[in-house]
Amino acid sequence: MGTETFHDLHRQERPLLLPNAWDFASGAALAAAGFPAIGTTSLGVAAAAGKPDAEGGTREETLALARSLARLPVPVTVDIEGGFSERPEEVAALAAELLSYGVAGINIEDGRPDGSLAPSRRQCVLIEAIKAAAPGLFLNARTDAYWLPGHEQEAVERVRAYTGAGADGVFVPGIAEEEDVVPVVDATPLPVNALFLPGRVTVGGLAALGVRRISYGSLLFRAALRAAVTTALEQRPPEGTPSYADVQRLVTG
Amino acid sequence: MGTETFHDLHRQERPLLLPNAWDFASGAALAAAGFPAIGTTSLGVAAAAGKPDAEGGTREETLALARSLARLPVPVTVDIEGGFSERPEEVAALAAELLSYGVAGINIEDGRPDGSLAPSRRQCVLIEAIKAAAPGLFLNARTDAYWLPGHEQEAVERVRAYTGAGADGVFVPGIAEEEDVVPVVDATPLPVNALFLPGRVTVGGLAALGVRRISYGSLLFRAALRAAVTTALEQRPPEGTPSYADVQRLVTG
Repeated sequence: MGTETFHDLHRQERPLLLPNAWDFASGAALAAAGFPAIGTTSLGVAAAAGKPDAEGGTREETLALARSLARLPVPVTVDIEGGFSERPEEVAALAAELLSYGVAGINIEDGRPDGSLAPSRRQCVLIEAIKAAAPGLFLNARTDAYWLPGHEQEAVERVRAYTGAGADGVFVPGIAEEEDVVPVVDATPLPVNALFLPGRVTVGGLAALGVRRISYGSLLFRAALRAAVTTALEQRPPEGTPSYADVQRLVTG
Repeated sequence: MGTETFHDLHRQERPLLLPNAWDFASGAALAAAGFPAIGTTSLGVAAAAGKPDAEGGTREETLALARSLARLPVPVTVDIEGGFSERPEEVAALAAELLSYGVAGINIEDGRPDGSLAPSRRQCVLIEAIKAAAPGLFLNARTDAYWLPGHEQEAVERVRAYTGAGADGVFVPGIAEEEDVVPVVDATPLPVNALFLPGRVTVGGLAALGVRRISYGSLLFRAALRAAVTTALEQRPPEGTPSYADVQRLVTG
C-alpha cells in the first residue's frame, strides 16, 4: 500500500526514520510501535534463511517476505540487493511484481558480491528499466561507494548519474561525517538516505545536514539476535517482552 | 546430527536447558553461545511467516527451518505442532523425513487449534506410528493439559499413556508449582520437560523437582522482537550487539 504516502514521507519536516524488518513479525511489531513505514534488511533475510548476504541467493525469501509485509497498514520498501539478475528486464519485472503486491518502494544497489561496483552506465540502464516497468514504486538507488573499500571518490558522481536516470531517492550507506554527507546532499535534488551508525551519527545530526531518510540496515536484526542469546543465558527476559497472545495478535490483526 | 547425543543430554547431572530458535540465524547464534542443543518455537516460526501459531499451517516453513538448522554442530529438535496432518502415517513420514535431514528430535502435541485435546488413544497411535517410522528420533510427547484451560486433571494420565506408547520424553508446558510438577515426574520414568516461565520457575527449582529438560518456548523470540522495537525507538543498540561480519560468519561458518 501507499506508494504516494511513501513518497510524501521523504518530504516531511523531519527525516523519515525507517526501521528494517527481516520477517513478518518484526515488521508488524515495528509498525505497531508507530513507525510510519517499514523497510527490509537483506542481511536479516539471508541469515534467517541460513544464506550469506549480498550474494543474490535470496530472491524467493525476499518475495515471500514482501508478500507478507504488504499486509501491514504502512508502506513497505524492499531491499532487492542488486536485483537478483544480471538482466535489467528481469529486475524490472521483479519490481513490477513487488508493486503488484502493494509494496511501496525498493532499494537497488550497485555493489556486487565480488566487492566491485557495477558500471555506472549499466546501473543507470537498470534504474531506467525499473522506472519504466513500475513507475509508482519509490526507487531508492543505493551506491556502495562508501560501503565497499576504495570507492569513496565515486559516490558523488554515481549519485548524480542515478538521479539523472530517474531514481526517486539515493542511498549512500557509510556516510557519517559532515565532509562526506554534505557533498552527497548537494549533488542531488532527491531525498538522500543514510544509514544509522550508532556512535557515529545521530538522527538530529544527519537531519541538520539535509539527510531525508535514515535507515537502520541490519542493526535491529542484530540487536534482536543479541537479545535472544542474552535472555537464554541470563534466563531473564527484557522488560516489556510481549506475551504469546500479543504476538498472535500481531499476525491475526 | 546427534540423535544419541541428544538422548544423552537428557541424562546429565543438570537438566538440559534448551533454547528455541525460529530461524537459522537465531539457532546458529544460540549454538555459538554454547547451548548443547537447539529446539524450535512454533509461535516464532508461524509469526515470522505471518501466520497464526498452532493452526497447522506452517508445515513448509517448519521443514525448511529444520533443513537449515540440521547444519548446526549441535543436535536439533523440531516442534511439529500436532504433526500437520490428521493421518498418523503422514505424520510418521514427516518424522522420518526430519530424521533424514539429520534432525535429532521432535515435539508432537495433543492440543488442537479449537482448544480441545486430541483423544489420548489417538495420540498414542500417533506416537507408535512415529516411533516405528523413525526409531532413533527423540520423540518428546507434549500434552497441552496445562496449556489449554480446564484439562489439568488429565495431565498425569496422558503422561502415563504416552510413556506406554513409546515416547522418549514428555513435555507438559505450564507446570510450575511443586504440586503440579511432582505428580508428572512421579508418573513416568522418562525425562520430563517443563517450560521456563520467568518469575514462576527457576532452572534450579525445576531441577530439584526432577525436571530433566527446560525449554524456553517462544520467550527468546518474543525477547528478540522487543529488542528490535526498543533499539529502533531508542536508537541505541544493546551492548554486545554482533557486527554485520559476525552475522555473516554465523551463516558461512
